[in-house]
Amino acid sequence: MLDPEILRDEILNGHIHYLRNVSIDNVIFGYHRKELKVLLQRPQGLSKWTVSGGYIKRTETIEEAASRIAMERTGLKELYLKQFKAFGNPVRTNDVSIPLKLTGELSNYKIDKGNWMLDYFVTLGFYTLTEFDLVRPCGEFYTEECQWWDIHNLPSLMFDHKLIIEEALKALRLHIYHYPIGYELLPSKFTLPEITSLYETILGKKLDDRNFSKKLLATGIIMKLNERKYIGPHRSPFLYVFDKINYEEALKNGMVLAI
Amino acid sequence: MLDPEILRDEILNGHIHYLRNVSIDNVIFGYHRKELKVLLQRPQGLSKWTVSGGYIKRTETIEEAASRIAMERTGLKELYLKQFKAFGNPVRTNDVSIPLKLTGELSNYKIDKGNWMLDYFVTLGFYTLTEFDLVRPCGEFYTEECQWWDIHNLPSLMFDHKLIIEEALKALRLHIYHYPIGYELLPSKFTLPEITSLYETILGKKLDDRNFSKKLLATGIIMKLNERKYIGPHRSPFLYVFDKINYEEALKNGMVLAI
Repeated sequence: MLDPEILRDEILNGHIHYLRNVSIDNVIFGYHRKELKVLLQRPQGLSKWTVSGGYIKRTETIEEAASRIAMERTGLKELYLKQFKAFGNPVRTNDVSIPLKLTGELSNYKIDKGNWMLDYFVTLGFYTLTEFDLVRPCGEFYTEECQWWDIHNLPSLMFDHKLIIEEALKALRLHIYHYPIGYELLPSKFTLPEITSLYETILGKKLDDRNFSKKLLATGIIMKLNERKYIGPHRSPFLYVFDKINYEEALKNGMVLAI
Repeated sequence: MLDPEILRDEILNGHIHYLRNVSIDNVIFGYHRKELKVLLQRPQGLSKWTVSGGYIKRTETIEEAASRIAMERTGLKELYLKQFKAFGNPVRTNDVSIPLKLTGELSNYKIDKGNWMLDYFVTLGFYTLTEFDLVRPCGEFYTEECQWWDIHNLPSLMFDHKLIIEEALKALRLHIYHYPIGYELLPSKFTLPEITSLYETILGKKLDDRNFSKKLLATGIIMKLNERKYIGPHRSPFLYVFDKINYEEALKNGMVLAI
């Protein structure tokens, strides 16, 4: 539920608590059994959808702000978080009419020309990848609806948020060659078909199994165990784990997956 | 030469012309015959060096601001420009003592606590790659010295600028697998050894010539000509050009160079 007093304070005094002219948009991707979705919100009193955005408190780092925003929307902490691009031009938020009149129970509110919220904002794009089954989509106080959408079937989006989602997906699909993205979504011991599926879902294409496995092993981030997973009488693939040291190094400095 | 009146106006009124709390730092890399350098400035009246930074005008996109900043320092337009990361935390610029007293001909000036310039700034990191022989390093009005430095031998740097350079270099070395970075530094017809050298310099390592050439050709961005470059009686390697369509596509949407 939205507390009108909090909204009033945000509209009038937000620029005291938050940085001006710079915000965060965190594209929250959800993965589950070969599906990739994106979590979107519809703000109270508005008709279009947005990615999970927010302002940066003066006491926060930008990464802390992005984590907090993800936590407010998913209920989950310490999700994988990656910056991908900043978006900034004088007209990126020009699709709202000014003064911005809110509707429904907020119909007493409007945001006037000159208000800090309607100023030129550079927004810092982050993305987060999480298991969508674990998430209880919840809005923060501005939000009227919050739900997962298929990445190929998005609703009408505010501002430049369609572009932001497209660029996030493009970045995710390049970053996966260099960072162990989404690996926390796998069980601690996993099979090659399981990790291959993760890559196929994110890249949105079929991979050559044998070649992919060979190249992934060549990075040194996964190690074969002398242990098998029993699936059926003639199906018991070897299990793999992450090599902790190479994994941490890849998270920090990147690797090259030459698939 | 620095005009004290302009400086005075920037200190007092800059927040009217520029966005608040968000700036740009553009790491200008120079390439020339297997060498990679970075262009740094020492601001007037200060002792440490900085990358090429500046503020964003309210009428500019962030890319226009980054290009303008590169132009002010190099004299060159339309350089290759790429965003890599934003840096933002409440203490990143805390290594200056406040009030900030300027020295030399600016000794009448100081920047007081509470001035917009000393506020929390999120800085957007871009990098630019250019032929360093073409550049006439020039300062804008704040700058006392401006010169190329070897990336392995940097001077004492202000704020978090050492980290910004390290992250720019790390990003450049990953991006080169996905974008045709630095290709405008090659002649329009070039040999495989020439393009291999460009990659080796940027990556800071020796590549396997034959394997690299094969993988680069597999991306489709270069094409072999039925034409050779005469170097000597037994040395006349084939010439190559860029495939315009695949090149533009790679610039826009990225490619995967699986070396």
